[in-house]
Amino acid sequence: MSIVTAIDTSDIRFPTSQQLDGSDAMNADPDYSAAYLRISTDAGDGLEGHGFVFTIGRGNDVQVAAIHALRDHLIGRDVEDLLENMGATWREFVYDSQLRWLGPEKGVMHMAIGAVVNALWDLKAKRAGLPLWQLLARMTPEQLVELVDFRYLSDAITPADALEIFRAAEPGRAEREAALLASGYPAYTTTPGWLGYSDEKLVRLAKEAVADGFTQIKLKVGASLEDDVRRMRLAREAVGPEIRIAIDANQRWDVADAIEWVNALAPFDVAWIEEPTNPDDVLGHAAIARGVAPIPVATGEHGANRVMFKQFLQAKALEVLQIDATRVAGVNENIAILLLAHRFGVPVCPHAGGVGLCEAVQHLSMFDAVALSGDTSGRVIEFVDHLHEHFVTPVDVHDGAYWPPLAPGAGAEMLASTREEFTFSPMADAREVIAR
Amino acid sequence: MSIVTAIDTSDIRFPTSQQLDGSDAMNADPDYSAAYLRISTDAGDGLEGHGFVFTIGRGNDVQVAAIHALRDHLIGRDVEDLLENMGATWREFVYDSQLRWLGPEKGVMHMAIGAVVNALWDLKAKRAGLPLWQLLARMTPEQLVELVDFRYLSDAITPADALEIFRAAEPGRAEREAALLASGYPAYTTTPGWLGYSDEKLVRLAKEAVADGFTQIKLKVGASLEDDVRRMRLAREAVGPEIRIAIDANQRWDVADAIEWVNALAPFDVAWIEEPTNPDDVLGHAAIARGVAPIPVATGEHGANRVMFKQFLQAKALEVLQIDATRVAGVNENIAILLLAHRFGVPVCPHAGGVGLCEAVQHLSMFDAVALSGDTSGRVIEFVDHLHEHFVTPVDVHDGAYWPPLAPGAGAEMLASTREEFTFSPMADAREVIAR
Repeated sequence: MSIVTAIDTSDIRFPTSQQLDGSDAMNADPDYSAAYLRISTDAGDGLEGHGFVFTIGRGNDVQVAAIHALRDHLIGRDVEDLLENMGATWREFVYDSQLRWLGPEKGVMHMAIGAVVNALWDLKAKRAGLPLWQLLARMTPEQLVELVDFRYLSDAITPADALEIFRAAEPGRAEREAALLASGYPAYTTTPGWLGYSDEKLVRLAKEAVADGFTQIKLKVGASLEDDVRRMRLAREAVGPEIRIAIDANQRWDVADAIEWVNALAPFDVAWIEEPTNPDDVLGHAAIARGVAPIPVATGEHGANRVMFKQFLQAKALEVLQIDATRVAGVNENIAILLLAHRFGVPVCPHAGGVGLCEAVQHLSMFDAVALSGDTSGRVIEFVDHLHEHFVTPVDVHDGAYWPPLAPGAGAEMLASTREEFTFSPMADAREVIAR
Repeated sequence: MSIVTAIDTSDIRFPTSQQLDGSDAMNADPDYSAAYLRISTDAGDGLEGHGFVFTIGRGNDVQVAAIHALRDHLIGRDVEDLLENMGATWREFVYDSQLRWLGPEKGVMHMAIGAVVNALWDLKAKRAGLPLWQLLARMTPEQLVELVDFRYLSDAITPADALEIFRAAEPGRAEREAALLASGYPAYTTTPGWLGYSDEKLVRLAKEAVADGFTQIKLKVGASLEDDVRRMRLAREAVGPEIRIAIDANQRWDVADAIEWVNALAPFDVAWIEEPTNPDDVLGHAAIARGVAPIPVATGEHGANRVMFKQFLQAKALEVLQIDATRVAGVNENIAILLLAHRFGVPVCPHAGGVGLCEAVQHLSMFDAVALSGDTSGRVIEFVDHLHEHFVTPVDVHDGAYWPPLAPGAGAEMLASTREEFTFSPMADAREVIAR
């Protein structure tokens, strides 16, 4: 038996706002950040569980405080017991009745639980000597069902339904794993399309994306229709008719505006419209989906929890579901969402980018491809070529695909040198602002 | 001109779990708490703005950290400018693009904004020498519309619609204010119905409630149907057929369970079923509302923001709307929700209790009665006789009604002695647990 001996948290921020990388219609100047944690044990095996919540700067300290608040659930606990019963472990965090008041199951406290859950999965995968996607894809259907909390989902999916899904995907796991290792998982890139980039940079990066083997790119839209029409035309001319161009409004519009704006861009052949309005607005998205058909509506990076995703699917309010590795309560809740998506026949195209999101979310899609939906058709994982150098096992993306990670763990471990260099100091930040 | 000179925060917790006051099907042992703030200025008038977020114990420190994170928006700012333009002030907080990532508009960060906004309203009302409800009820329709952010609401209500509502209520404000001062605002009590109470205590408190002039009580349900049937029978026998008995499941059920359970209790004449399932589940509540009709569904105390309330109304998922003073982003957002409720013809019966919620929320209902819906019929404010002695201006509830506060301010100011005595110390708490 070993016990959890320490939870170390860090407030890590990269000054990305200086380059306008990551700029969009709602997020003018993000500083990509991570509220980061390390779980240490006395096992003597040198293994640590690493996890994080992605944020965009201010408030990262609040997110760190929320992770810190969970330490009493972990310190001194039996590691094997926590890791052997990840479903029960998840419930213990999410149903802490006092902490639950702070959501419930949404926002800072829920994301903190996600970071802790993901760090435990990282430790579990390292102990098993497997990358997370492979660890999950080798669990039995019964074990996988145990991971998921079906509370509030039973009007859409039951444990029996989930068991049936996992059992149906059991034959062929080995073949699908081999295919994944041989061909990778399809990717698309958002690198060309940030709002803060010049037309010249947009065109250059769009052409580079095609040369790099991507078959889909994405443009940020929503600040000015005139600009968006010009940028869409330039992008379409740059990439030709065969490459898919998705657009992303980052919640900029109300319902009527969204419908009008998207239809104005429709002549340039839009692969999907992402986050047209507020991420809580199930009925609004459903109205937009009807109003812009056949252009599909995509959303999910700000989806607070599985109950919201359930409703988006029930209401036909999204046609592309974008999971995020650090928005909901970790791996377990994302498996619930993958199950819901499969049950409703909707493809999952994860949100990534930021810092560490690519490293983390690829495991979920690869698990899905091998052991849940068993399918990669119509699916792509977002890719942004940012900050990967800060990870112990950075993503391997080339020829338009994510190539399966083979290192043990969940992929979220940052280099110790990075954690040291980019740990945020409020005083140093104030001095720098004054120096400018 | 005066400026904001300090934001002081406190982590205040009352050890209420020792008495099982406040126990329900999801919250077994709440320690009523407040993440509290004081805004000080250099005006030299001795006035401070006080506000808080109500929580139930663990995590109150995280909530305090979130309030603290907002101080840079306030320190050194022109007080008159902030208070004269409360609509713009609200937008500045809610649309801080980096902080917004932590919600958006939900959970810890959004509630922190609510506390700050409410503290500014407290200061504004104190400066005006008026209780908040009267301050609001004396603003012009144009000024009131300016307070509300209609982003994401325009498919349900526009600024023009809101202006029409406020203008329609302008004639008769004086008469309605006089009637409110003469007759109070109807209240109901939850005191008898906590799950942790014995049958004997339930019956005794139910009878006392009737003797105290209340015409509605509420019982917590959802842990055991057998117990609930027995407790409902006892309560109905205790109060007779004329008194309304609402029930509250505190999110305990899935959709099908809720319908079955509520219909089993229907013979005892249920005034409403409150929080039957997850508070994010608009479509689930709509299904439950259809399944238990004509018993109305009530919810809102965990409603994250105005976009969620919009959908509950659009989907006919609630028939009694329960605003909460500290869940959303303060007075401004609650005015948006009051407007939505009125537009959809749904009565607002606020959630209260906890600590300070009664003191705070009564101002919103009284403003609504004078200058928005202009109506108190079918409306009651929740009352729990708890912890009022800790406030500078405790509520005045008697003869089954809230009596309008006349002291300047928003009602949220705790006694300095209370703040000192109940400031939470993690070390002291650990010692006490060990001593037990």
